Amino acid sequence: MNATVTSRFSHRMEGVPRSFIREILKVAISPDVISFAGGLPNKELFPLEELRASADKLMSGSDRNILQYANTEGYLPLREKIAGRYARKGIQVNPENILITNGSQQGLDLLGKIFINEGDAVLIEEPGYLGAIQAFSLFRPRFVTVPMTHEGIDTEWMEQAIDNNNPRLAYLIPNFQNPSGISYSEETRHKVSDICRRRMLYLVEDDPYGDIRFEGAPKHSLHHYLPEQTILLGTFSKTVVPAFRMGWIVAPDEVMERLVIAKQAADLHTDYFTQRLIYQYLTDYDIDEHIALICHSYGKQAKAMMAALEHCFPKEVHFTRPEGGMFLWVTLPEGHSSMRLFERAIRENVAFVPGNPFYVDKEDVNTCRLNFSCSNEPEIEEGVRRLAKVLEM
Amino acid sequence: MNATVTSRFSHRMEGVPRSFIREILKVAISPDVISFAGGLPNKELFPLEELRASADKLMSGSDRNILQYANTEGYLPLREKIAGRYARKGIQVNPENILITNGSQQGLDLLGKIFINEGDAVLIEEPGYLGAIQAFSLFRPRFVTVPMTHEGIDTEWMEQAIDNNNPRLAYLIPNFQNPSGISYSEETRHKVSDICRRRMLYLVEDDPYGDIRFEGAPKHSLHHYLPEQTILLGTFSKTVVPAFRMGWIVAPDEVMERLVIAKQAADLHTDYFTQRLIYQYLTDYDIDEHIALICHSYGKQAKAMMAALEHCFPKEVHFTRPEGGMFLWVTLPEGHSSMRLFERAIRENVAFVPGNPFYVDKEDVNTCRLNFSCSNEPEIEEGVRRLAKVLEM
Repeated sequence: MNATVTSRFSHRMEGVPRSFIREILKVAISPDVISFAGGLPNKELFPLEELRASADKLMSGSDRNILQYANTEGYLPLREKIAGRYARKGIQVNPENILITNGSQQGLDLLGKIFINEGDAVLIEEPGYLGAIQAFSLFRPRFVTVPMTHEGIDTEWMEQAIDNNNPRLAYLIPNFQNPSGISYSEETRHKVSDICRRRMLYLVEDDPYGDIRFEGAPKHSLHHYLPEQTILLGTFSKTVVPAFRMGWIVAPDEVMERLVIAKQAADLHTDYFTQRLIYQYLTDYDIDEHIALICHSYGKQAKAMMAALEHCFPKEVHFTRPEGGMFLWVTLPEGHSSMRLFERAIRENVAFVPGNPFYVDKEDVNTCRLNFSCSNEPEIEEGVRRLAKVLEM
Repeated sequence: MNATVTSRFSHRMEGVPRSFIREILKVAISPDVISFAGGLPNKELFPLEELRASADKLMSGSDRNILQYANTEGYLPLREKIAGRYARKGIQVNPENILITNGSQQGLDLLGKIFINEGDAVLIEEPGYLGAIQAFSLFRPRFVTVPMTHEGIDTEWMEQAIDNNNPRLAYLIPNFQNPSGISYSEETRHKVSDICRRRMLYLVEDDPYGDIRFEGAPKHSLHHYLPEQTILLGTFSKTVVPAFRMGWIVAPDEVMERLVIAKQAADLHTDYFTQRLIYQYLTDYDIDEHIALICHSYGKQAKAMMAALEHCFPKEVHFTRPEGGMFLWVTLPEGHSSMRLFERAIRENVAFVPGNPFYVDKEDVNTCRLNFSCSNEPEIEEGVRRLAKVLEM
């Protein structure tokens, strides 16, 4: 009887990966574990006092509409602030083309909804962001993967993959990619835009980490090269706080129009009180000053991790050297299994994410994602030492 | 060129209705308009001061995790509070079977995702809730509609409709239905549960208004009769504030498991800060005392509207007499068009929602939804007088 009831679920639930990280983190919750597994920003840097003052100010006013239903697109003054921040980076966007979402993750869900038919090709990076793989999977696409090089996505491979598969979307993270930490070179950005322009392909540029640059000069957004076909995803999760689930999509008119319909069907609008709260915070405080603090701290942590890896790991193990973001990517010699390394590591009380969930069609890989934003420098050094001990080479 | 880019949207965007109410409300924003069109709770009743104190208390603590990423299911103590409120109404649910969502609207989206394949039948009431029609539409179902009687859904029709169409889900609002204001009789609830039990069909019981009863005795939830196949949707939008987008789903284990996967892919989790804030409010204040205020106020407003309709409208116009909720439902004599009435009404500065969007396959109907929660008694009397003036009979 139960079997009959259960078979009433939709086909789309069959192909969706369980959250690998979720499962893996269950073993990493002991306080003795030094965890490089999470993807959390450092909570010590959250502007708690400032947000408290902002909330108090907001709720001391007489505007009861801060607690009412609101429009689907989001609070216009907040969208204007976001457009203003883009303008200061040389990216011209109209506030009317910004939709407030529940974190960038919801942006992925809405884009999946409006673009992907079952069986459609979607181009992603390899390794690729597993949140995007999960969100898109529910719409049953065929993933077309293009490998990353140290200059960003492999553009020759990308061009061929597009011509062979005619994807609906290309999903890319040009700045400090999750999981690899790699940033696209200016030349790669230029080439990617050219390739997509000629094929009239929409680019999704996911940019959660762009502001968290601790080294090198900022590079151009893909939106700079191809504004009419670039859909930008942004978020306050890494620069202010993640709890609010406050992100946004910048999209051309014809995409925006459909996103608004999908957003309304999905949840009417994003938490309006929190939209007003973050607007109050942005009005009363200097977010760039705050971001500078985060960059300073993550930069030191990243350097500590790179130095420790350099010092403790054999030369055969390679790792990326991110100029920003929260992750770096370790590649073990051919034939080594990061899953087996994880099992040994966890016994030594150190955790990371084996590369598996960042691939759509590989089972046992030799790559690992290490997060450096949530551990202080002594923890990082000790954690890397523990990892080195179980490397078995 | 633009045409080629545009054709890259998914098929599912073709069949989704634009928001009729959204379009219609654009003409109803003048301050001279008395609007019975909206679906908003009365903002004068929002517990602004209490929420301000709760926010201050929450943010004065040293727990920085209130601003961090959180688990997908939601804050467990909040889910325990929700389970506790159900228990006091005689409904036994395990907090582990409660998923916190962005309002009940997101519950509808997630249920659509996990249950509906393209072309699957979904049973809904006629007239039915347009938010559900919108959310489900994105998964391209075939809607099977069952008419409402004054005792709730027509159970004989329902039984036949199920046998003829084998739907995936039956979506019902047993208490103070939107748009009709009708409540199912105890007998209808019993019959509905029996029908679904025998066919192993999942019931979705959407209950945004159940607490807002201003007359008569509470009736049993469908969950009481059929716990193993009833999926309950609840929300704080009508009892506390809508801005927070704080709702929940109660679901059996096998449904919950899939909902969590879909929720994680959709947006990782609901705004955690607001979850903590509403928990703080529920801990420090008596929500039942607050709900009593709302019931008292809406009850007076509903009575004023019913008295005015009785007094000003001809006998040929019928209307429902809700015991709770925010809406009543007017039926004009056969052959009259509520859309034409709307056009005349708006010129007299009174607005309502013509019945059209609450049907999936009817174009020009003779029914109207009137909201009474957002206007005070003199406004209600004046608005009904204006409406009566343009009735043209």
